[in-house]
Amino acid sequence: MRQFINAKEDMVTEAIDGAIAASGGTLTRLDGYPHIRVVVRTDWDKSKVALVTGGGSGHEPAHVGFVGQGMLAAAVCGDVFASPSADAVLAGILAVTGSAGCLLIVKNYTGDRLNFGLAAERARAFGLNVFMVIVDDDVALPELPQARGLAGTLFVHKMRVVASSRSIGMSLDTCTVPGAIKEDRIPDGMVELGLGIHGEAGVEQVAAGGAKDAIAKVSEKLVATMSAKPHVALINNLGGSSVLEMSILTSAFVASPLGALTELMVGPDAMMTAIDMHGFSISVMELASGDDALLTQPVDCPGWPGCHRVTKSNVLPLPDGLSPIRAPASAHAKTQAFLTGCCEVLIASEQDLNLLDAKSGDGDTGSTLASASRALIDAMDRLPLADHTQLYRAIGLELSQTMGGSSGVLLAIFFAASGDASSSGLPMTQALKMGLDRMRQIGGANPGDRTMVDALLPALTALKDGMPKAAAAARKGADYTATLTSAKAGRATYINAEQLKGHVDPGAEAVARLFAHLALG
Amino acid sequence: MRQFINAKEDMVTEAIDGAIAASGGTLTRLDGYPHIRVVVRTDWDKSKVALVTGGGSGHEPAHVGFVGQGMLAAAVCGDVFASPSADAVLAGILAVTGSAGCLLIVKNYTGDRLNFGLAAERARAFGLNVFMVIVDDDVALPELPQARGLAGTLFVHKMRVVASSRSIGMSLDTCTVPGAIKEDRIPDGMVELGLGIHGEAGVEQVAAGGAKDAIAKVSEKLVATMSAKPHVALINNLGGSSVLEMSILTSAFVASPLGALTELMVGPDAMMTAIDMHGFSISVMELASGDDALLTQPVDCPGWPGCHRVTKSNVLPLPDGLSPIRAPASAHAKTQAFLTGCCEVLIASEQDLNLLDAKSGDGDTGSTLASASRALIDAMDRLPLADHTQLYRAIGLELSQTMGGSSGVLLAIFFAASGDASSSGLPMTQALKMGLDRMRQIGGANPGDRTMVDALLPALTALKDGMPKAAAAARKGADYTATLTSAKAGRATYINAEQLKGHVDPGAEAVARLFAHLALG
Repeated sequence: MRQFINAKEDMVTEAIDGAIAASGGTLTRLDGYPHIRVVVRTDWDKSKVALVTGGGSGHEPAHVGFVGQGMLAAAVCGDVFASPSADAVLAGILAVTGSAGCLLIVKNYTGDRLNFGLAAERARAFGLNVFMVIVDDDVALPELPQARGLAGTLFVHKMRVVASSRSIGMSLDTCTVPGAIKEDRIPDGMVELGLGIHGEAGVEQVAAGGAKDAIAKVSEKLVATMSAKPHVALINNLGGSSVLEMSILTSAFVASPLGALTELMVGPDAMMTAIDMHGFSISVMELASGDDALLTQPVDCPGWPGCHRVTKSNVLPLPDGLSPIRAPASAHAKTQAFLTGCCEVLIASEQDLNLLDAKSGDGDTGSTLASASRALIDAMDRLPLADHTQLYRAIGLELSQTMGGSSGVLLAIFFAASGDASSSGLPMTQALKMGLDRMRQIGGANPGDRTMVDALLPALTALKDGMPKAAAAARKGADYTATLTSAKAGRATYINAEQLKGHVDPGAEAVARLFAHLALG
Repeated sequence: MRQFINAKEDMVTEAIDGAIAASGGTLTRLDGYPHIRVVVRTDWDKSKVALVTGGGSGHEPAHVGFVGQGMLAAAVCGDVFASPSADAVLAGILAVTGSAGCLLIVKNYTGDRLNFGLAAERARAFGLNVFMVIVDDDVALPELPQARGLAGTLFVHKMRVVASSRSIGMSLDTCTVPGAIKEDRIPDGMVELGLGIHGEAGVEQVAAGGAKDAIAKVSEKLVATMSAKPHVALINNLGGSSVLEMSILTSAFVASPLGALTELMVGPDAMMTAIDMHGFSISVMELASGDDALLTQPVDCPGWPGCHRVTKSNVLPLPDGLSPIRAPASAHAKTQAFLTGCCEVLIASEQDLNLLDAKSGDGDTGSTLASASRALIDAMDRLPLADHTQLYRAIGLELSQTMGGSSGVLLAIFFAASGDASSSGLPMTQALKMGLDRMRQIGGANPGDRTMVDALLPALTALKDGMPKAAAAARKGADYTATLTSAKAGRATYINAEQLKGHVDPGAEAVARLFAHLALG
């Protein structure tokens, strides 16, 4: 089982029960399990027009997540990707419809059309006023006699008016229908454009070109159908895109021709999903007079993320106090060559150290050190290369400004403290040892804790006997970390012995390589 | 590229820009890109204590999604899974801290501790009151000297007090770090318990046993640390779980020993993610006096889904009007054998029809027909088997009550209309043709549209010449659908020609198999 579900046939009722439990008492359901799965508002007042929708499940938070004050009175849930029965729809209608009648919001799929249509007929036989709106916002297949209903449906939930919305989706992968074998339809490096919300194949597969390119393709399709008037756009996660990706897509959206036509934005958020589909859809609608107020009015349901004005805020200036006094730059060819050589060792080790770190941490030690090294090489002409006492601090400052991660700060502390010691007249070996002491104090690492200390401490201790001895000590210390099966500092502390065994700590490895390089020089 | 990102080095700034654009003007940032990525409230009043947090990116919506009224004043973003620099943290502190001072909320990772700690020292040098709270809510590794900070951090964002929270996570898969190779660590059929939010391996891998089992395992770990007093629980999607799964997990949570101790609930929602990790975490905290008010007070930030009382609402009775009058049951061995035989053909065809439907639809035709067939076999003793005119309607009624999907309603209409025709005295073949006409009228399918009509219409037309002719006509009609590369009704209309070619329509195939069976009898 590659999903957090129980028995397939209980999925929908369990999901409903979960949504009701999390609603804080605003939702309840009809006593019709397993065939009749209807969620209704607990505070519903039948004197108003009841909005009722539904359809297949698998689109969560649609449709249950939109039941609540300011949105739906009831949602009728079918099995995953299958319309609810006409009986279930009828139960939903009868439960919430009073003298003011109801509006059925139906996405344009045969099953939904039939079941909601039949239920509407049966409800009308009881003398109820039942209106039905069919949403067909898909623009993927313009030649199709019947366009699909997609996330544009949500505008109707919110606005209670039949809106002429347009939607299109794009995905990097298909969805996982519980209990079915996942179709491996979209090859690596491709995206599918114009696909539906049930795993149906899209109209075309195109090369995947990143977030900006994805938005450009979607924008092109939508803009072709749009007027130059202000629009609202709904940015929908089809279920499997990360929040990080959705934010990046939103950034690209704002900068696109589509963004230029957009005044209001709903999302980004997962609103009308295809279970876990790694994609997104954008729905747009031209804003008519009064739409703004309808869209931005607060509601009380978990599925609606709110509708906001698209804003490009002015960035604030950086506060004062960030720029420490810099020692004046000075040239010194030998020192520059020495530092550049050290940096190049770390740059060349990027992949190796990342791989080591992947065994015990988050796989970024190599990239972190290489980025800092590149930045240090770029900063060479503003360093006080001829003033070695100031140079320690200056290196510490550079590292603290360009290098993220623990190692950045630890090294900044190391160089700052070494600089302090050097200023106070200590020779290099002792100054560096003072730096190490300070780093250990703040970072909390002791020898044997499986950190760079295991290589750096013996190396500095052996340094008085010459660089080759120091290099040998660093290598021995680094290799020793591969025998340590319990890290006591850093992220490797979370890793079990099995995973750690036989792998050198990446920080210790970096130190060993640096000393090996210095011993050659 | 298997993610919607652009250049790896622009991910974090682009994600921030997206979040600001979608904030409706409540958020802005400091002018410090690319190294200083600090998001601040536009309406922040420095006379109050400023809550400042941050850390590595990749946990979206944390931390930017929690900046806003009632929550954070600023969030400081590092690279993915790497702490921001001390300079960036200092910029964040200086931007929002006034005479009342600030509270830094730091998850217990070395990098965050160091950078926030250093920045705090530097800010204090300006005379600012800087407080720092380290959150270490992980219970996965009780023997660890330093517990990790996980989603329990969010309680501190909301409550502004140092809360003693406990968290544990579980996942079916690792996360995809952009630009890195995804680690394939968790075998199929296993879940990892007690894992972190950076892709670090969990403390143990156990057999995956579905949603209830997952909650039971997490519940066991947490309950062991909890008092019998009421708690708040935060149900967090680690990024890659579908909304459907999160609702199912919530349902299991409410029924678990953990749920019994829980009075308030936050989520389920993606709050503190590990990019796209297919897992969840639960954080709990004992409720002290006044916590309730702090937790449930509304806030204005997109990341916080609200805190609600866990409720088991009373279900509402089904409305009247759902039960049509049933014809009295009657026995008729031959008819029962006939119907049962038909049902068994469809049950035996479940997998074949699903596979065909996967080519052109959503892969459920076989399951839909088999479920309905099983239900019809179960309903046999309440059918008017001896009254063939009533039997049509009764079958239609059964199908409309047990069978979802388009085919359920279409068949219900087919049988109801056939029954009407039979009541009015038409012979069977003509009655069935009348049913088919009515079904086509509502479903909109014409011959050649690639539906069951392509098999059913020729079969019923040939029926006057005997069942073998009808079966041959049905088979010919079904096979003909494999040559149709453009469907005009049903979900296959969304599929392109390439995908359809060579595959028989599953509805037509079902009809052909049914008639082949009848021809044998």
